[in-house]
Amino acid sequence: MRIEIINTGDELLLGFRQNTHQRWLGRRLNDLGYRVSRQVSIPDNGECIEGAVAEALSRADLVIVTGGLGPTSDDLTRERIAGLLGLELRTDANVLKHLDAFFAARNRQTPERVKVQAEVPEGGTVLPNPHGTAPGLALRVEAGRFRDGADSWLIMLPGPPRELYPMFDEQVAPLLGRERPLSSESACRNLRTSGMGESLVEEKLDQPLAELVGRGLGVHFCLSPGGVDVRLACVGASANNMVAEAEQIVRTTLPDHVYGVGDELLEEVVVRTLTEANATLALAESCTGGLVANRITNVSGASLVFLAGLVTYSNEAKQNFLGVHEATLAEHGAVSEETACQMASGALVKTGADYALSITGIAGPTGGTPGKPVGTVYIGLASKSGRPLAMKFLNPYDRETFKLVTSQQALELLRRRLTKDSVKNKKPPA
Amino acid sequence: MRIEIINTGDELLLGFRQNTHQRWLGRRLNDLGYRVSRQVSIPDNGECIEGAVAEALSRADLVIVTGGLGPTSDDLTRERIAGLLGLELRTDANVLKHLDAFFAARNRQTPERVKVQAEVPEGGTVLPNPHGTAPGLALRVEAGRFRDGADSWLIMLPGPPRELYPMFDEQVAPLLGRERPLSSESACRNLRTSGMGESLVEEKLDQPLAELVGRGLGVHFCLSPGGVDVRLACVGASANNMVAEAEQIVRTTLPDHVYGVGDELLEEVVVRTLTEANATLALAESCTGGLVANRITNVSGASLVFLAGLVTYSNEAKQNFLGVHEATLAEHGAVSEETACQMASGALVKTGADYALSITGIAGPTGGTPGKPVGTVYIGLASKSGRPLAMKFLNPYDRETFKLVTSQQALELLRRRLTKDSVKNKKPPA
Repeated sequence: MRIEIINTGDELLLGFRQNTHQRWLGRRLNDLGYRVSRQVSIPDNGECIEGAVAEALSRADLVIVTGGLGPTSDDLTRERIAGLLGLELRTDANVLKHLDAFFAARNRQTPERVKVQAEVPEGGTVLPNPHGTAPGLALRVEAGRFRDGADSWLIMLPGPPRELYPMFDEQVAPLLGRERPLSSESACRNLRTSGMGESLVEEKLDQPLAELVGRGLGVHFCLSPGGVDVRLACVGASANNMVAEAEQIVRTTLPDHVYGVGDELLEEVVVRTLTEANATLALAESCTGGLVANRITNVSGASLVFLAGLVTYSNEAKQNFLGVHEATLAEHGAVSEETACQMASGALVKTGADYALSITGIAGPTGGTPGKPVGTVYIGLASKSGRPLAMKFLNPYDRETFKLVTSQQALELLRRRLTKDSVKNKKPPA
Repeated sequence: MRIEIINTGDELLLGFRQNTHQRWLGRRLNDLGYRVSRQVSIPDNGECIEGAVAEALSRADLVIVTGGLGPTSDDLTRERIAGLLGLELRTDANVLKHLDAFFAARNRQTPERVKVQAEVPEGGTVLPNPHGTAPGLALRVEAGRFRDGADSWLIMLPGPPRELYPMFDEQVAPLLGRERPLSSESACRNLRTSGMGESLVEEKLDQPLAELVGRGLGVHFCLSPGGVDVRLACVGASANNMVAEAEQIVRTTLPDHVYGVGDELLEEVVVRTLTEANATLALAESCTGGLVANRITNVSGASLVFLAGLVTYSNEAKQNFLGVHEATLAEHGAVSEETACQMASGALVKTGADYALSITGIAGPTGGTPGKPVGTVYIGLASKSGRPLAMKFLNPYDRETFKLVTSQQALELLRRRLTKDSVKNKKPPA
């Protein structure tokens, strides 16, 4: 099974946009047990599109083309691929209906040039797009056209990630399963860890997993800010058993560090844990500037557990909104254990939440001192039971990485506390 | 001048790593006036490397291969390319000396298998690597070998970005300037707009730019949440003049919508404009959950203008921290013009800021009503001069897109107000 991906877009070659599709599709296909053999980026140019598609079809069982399905003059994918395959484009009534409904919901008439998105090459399958206007398209290309021996599938997906991602998961993955089922068992599991570096995670797992690796288990480590993903993959008769066994070993070896599976985000785990505990949260952020609140409120259902976030950038705001004492700021500074504790306590009292996290630090690039260099952070945690505490971290990174790593540490501190509290509070069986 | 990039690495195809080289090299070459025609990612496999390089050399004047120059068994680039070109590998004494010095500085003997990095295909030019062990390599491939008519250059660069980036800037860029100087003027300008959809932007610019397009101007539109980039590019004798003329036309046609150039972010423009006006900002966010505060505080120097952000998710928080009246919430609801205005006024008064933005809406997926469907948003703006106002928007997207689009609208509302105020406050010439 040979898969090739073609990403269209001048912006990719000009370096104006990161090619996030390449990574996402590679990852997704790999999770399903498939493997991408080649990826190509080409400009929005008709000849380039035809050339790259013809070349890929001469080799691959599945060719996925992204982008170029929009309504503007440099969106050429649909038209050029239909031309290459000698297929007529016909207006699809259902897609036209979807376009009209899409614009009606926005109190607008469907613009004339958007209607090109309802055109479908004859024999093509429409992949509806509930999140945008351009549908995806799937075509079976008969053996003998570009290569001998077997048919190929050619799938066109719209460029915007929020349209492409669900379309792949909901429509392309099932199509693949039907049309190109895997010939042998395959299993894959991604475990997300927080709080340890890549080489330390690898070191700790090396021996415990050695026997399974000898039997064919694949283990990959992938660094992300504030965490390391451990991917366990296996192909063959007992793939599922081996991956399950490996997961158990990872969880036993790193009991505190594994916070989720798959693509699960730490903020999702935190919101779910708060919801299960029927507990509420308040935030007091300085140097992370609202990033933790933003991450928490990205989770649907956050409004049930999240009361308020105070982004107190100035000292005055720390005093006014959180009741941090002027004397504390004068004596210990805004970036200190004492200020972090008072911020957390203040957020707890002023909002009535069950838990409050606070973050104060020096994001840089300026503002560091010899005693408190750029990257110094205090993370405070207050709850209705017990005294507030604060932990010190040093995150000497660029500004955005600093914020991301710090927010991860804060959420991880809260998650471990919630896990501990929920074990403690669990009622004994009646 | 045709340029192709080949990125090697299993991790790129498995989706374990973002292909940041593609963007970086594309952008860098574009800044120098060159343009990448095609980019390919291939696995760490000898046949794939030979095949992709031969194919690229059959078309391109310059082929850049990244990765696969390390010391491990899956680093095959050097060896396979030498094989493809029929060149012998010879140990280069200077590189060997560099390797020994590199390890000596780390109190280590040069590992035996690292010495493979001192091997250079005969006739090749070494690109020294002050930041790592593997040098880059440059080879001139004679016309007639893979294509007729002209020689090609084949350049191999090491994978780690902190080795590749300086090697490109310090050695590849000068080599290009010497060996493949630009034959004609080239110019490129990216204008960032906000507040209009892609097709509307194109429609408005279509006629005004038609004459320049007829003379060879390239115009591209690139969608981003809450905005559209308009890229103007031209090659030829009067490229700079034509792009400058086109920029003027875009700015005149869309006087309110162009907010920045190049990669500039709206939050950077807002922070800069506030700084120039010596004005301060407070935020009161509900449905965006801290995203606007997060964007503002991503900008270095934000602490000079940003006082505080209140993420008031619950009604109680809106009352406690912003002084929104209980009666307003009861009568008009949390998502209303009245609440938005009171949130903005409250943030202004409680922080003493010069400007305050407020945002209240229904992010969804739940919480909508027939009168106020999911996606309804009110954005309020208060300032020390004049009454607060609020504008209504409808952003019926998934949760994260909703937040991003809404934050863009809020920042854009503030930016236009700041621009207006700064024009108004500008002193007349003495």
